[in-house]
Amino acid sequence: MITIDKDNKLVTLINIFTVEPAKQQQLVDLLIHATETSMRHLPGFISANIHRSLDGTKVANYAQWRSVEDFQAMQKNPAAKPHMEQAAALAKFEPGLYEVVDTQSAAPNV
Amino acid sequence: MITIDKDNKLVTLINIFTVEPAKQQQLVDLLIHATETSMRHLPGFISANIHRSLDGTKVANYAQWRSVEDFQAMQKNPAAKPHMEQAAALAKFEPGLYEVVDTQSAAPNV
Repeated sequence: MITIDKDNKLVTLINIFTVEPAKQQQLVDLLIHATETSMRHLPGFISANIHRSLDGTKVANYAQWRSVEDFQAMQKNPAAKPHMEQAAALAKFEPGLYEVVDTQSAAPNV
Repeated sequence: MITIDKDNKLVTLINIFTVEPAKQQQLVDLLIHATETSMRHLPGFISANIHRSLDGTKVANYAQWRSVEDFQAMQKNPAAKPHMEQAAALAKFEPGLYEVVDTQSAAPNV
């Protein structure tokens, strides 16, 4: 089960892809395939969570890595490179590395 | 506990704020306060998860709502408006509404 918790000592990658709506599904499929065949086998990978925007223009990957060093090693890994190049050919993307600072769920009365 | 699951029928808001590093903490505090005092009491709110980028230039809110209608009702709610205006004064932001299409955790051998 994938959880968001500020006490987890991990690094979160949030990568927002901007894509033509006609290519959104192709990009989703590519990211799922890249995660299955490559990313999830790499050291320090914790999770990837692929999201499709309701308006068709974006795809988001909310991914968790054990450390910045593991994430950077993935970026240099030849196994990951073709997938990243294919994604770059389909969409512009803007990745950011984050830490969780606060989580809140609904108030008890809601 | 906050979970990401494609079988949850909910709507995910991913809002990326771009901010001057000197104001990142102020924006984080504002978003936490807005969630505590306003958002988490509104109908259909499930969770908000505030993230700080490691490079200091962004803040991300990964939030979950029961439905698009609940999210839109929040946007029109007078209780939410001052918080959104304060955030807009501090940072540019780009919100998107998403559905989760795939989640994967690490392969068993990792």
